Amino acid sequence: MSDKHLSTQFDAELSGISTRVLEMGGLVESQVVQAVHALTNFSGEIASVVLQGEERVNQMEVEIDRDLSAIIARRQPTARDLRLLIAISKSIANLERVGDEAARIARTVQRLLNSGVSSRLRLPVADLAFESELAIAQLRKALDAFARLDTARALEVLKQDDQIDQEFDGLLRKLITYMMEDPRTISSSIDLVFVAKAIERVGDHAKNLAEAIIYVVKGTDVRHTSMQNVEDAVR
Amino acid sequence: MSDKHLSTQFDAELSGISTRVLEMGGLVESQVVQAVHALTNFSGEIASVVLQGEERVNQMEVEIDRDLSAIIARRQPTARDLRLLIAISKSIANLERVGDEAARIARTVQRLLNSGVSSRLRLPVADLAFESELAIAQLRKALDAFARLDTARALEVLKQDDQIDQEFDGLLRKLITYMMEDPRTISSSIDLVFVAKAIERVGDHAKNLAEAIIYVVKGTDVRHTSMQNVEDAVR
Repeated sequence: MSDKHLSTQFDAELSGISTRVLEMGGLVESQVVQAVHALTNFSGEIASVVLQGEERVNQMEVEIDRDLSAIIARRQPTARDLRLLIAISKSIANLERVGDEAARIARTVQRLLNSGVSSRLRLPVADLAFESELAIAQLRKALDAFARLDTARALEVLKQDDQIDQEFDGLLRKLITYMMEDPRTISSSIDLVFVAKAIERVGDHAKNLAEAIIYVVKGTDVRHTSMQNVEDAVR
Repeated sequence: MSDKHLSTQFDAELSGISTRVLEMGGLVESQVVQAVHALTNFSGEIASVVLQGEERVNQMEVEIDRDLSAIIARRQPTARDLRLLIAISKSIANLERVGDEAARIARTVQRLLNSGVSSRLRLPVADLAFESELAIAQLRKALDAFARLDTARALEVLKQDDQIDQEFDGLLRKLITYMMEDPRTISSSIDLVFVAKAIERVGDHAKNLAEAIIYVVKGTDVRHTSMQNVEDAVR
């Protein structure tokens, strides 16, 4: 009876942590959406909003990690729960990095505005918007898979990662062409190259989240293995 | 007596894990050194050696993580030991990323060689070598601080991180100048921009390691805080 009670309390703590991870995930997702919005609209105001939100992301990482350590120290988690707790700790590090990428994009927008390049800069808006939609969709799907501990959905994220990489390569080629056509845009185009890279990394972080989910549910570490291995683990 | 015995065994396990982390650290350090060497000497052979080593780095990450989970599940670590184990888990993720950066540089060398640009490419060898020496020194210092759990040394790493960032900015400006002078070099110069970025990130990972060491020894999470706060925590 007492064990039951303890276990229920532990479950409540776990579910509380999971809720906060999803909250943090929602926040960084919105940070990325807004950062891309700031860029495609050349809005310094929206960029400022993103930079103000960065602090909150960082704070959530520190807070959730503190709670995790407290839970592990207080309880004696089972192997599966422990996997979940460690995976959460790594996952929030990934989410914090997504927040970093959003802030990086926002700072780029401010720099572009300050250097007054907006008139000359050929912004591949459609491509940037498409790449970021892919990355945000991946992040959302990974968070959704985390919420339901849904490995099939996590597998989808892993399978779709290549698409963002291809989109990034295409964008890079386009930016190189712009630079060659008008070398005066080189400096600002390089800024956009880093934006495209930041978006690609958001996709990478979503992939890391997806791998963590499979590890939690199946106990199999699928990092650095072939897609065939991952599919076998999920099945 | 039995407790003493158990605790001694646990200490041995901990120290075994630490040794392997340092081994992994030595491996990724050598991967970075060789990758930069491959670039500055335009050597496809050395680049291949780096790419062959990547698998071993990935494998070590997975193995150490597995051992960590096994130890935590089997023992009931004290709060301090638990901090150490979680910090190790995050640290090896950082080390693996250092290995990724080395592989990225090696792949760039191969691409540059395949596209036959070597004759036209103005390689800012001295600057790249200097930036990478800084980054490698930071990584070495962080690993050294980890081996001795030396927070003063970890603090040095945090204080010196800005220097690499400045070096990166200078290198970026130089590459932009090259591109403007000869737009035919844009494509390969962009490759070098990413190399410079990869080296800068090695420095970032060293910084993350240093923060983990302070967390383990002092119990204070110094991520996302001011240098004053970090100094207070270490003192």
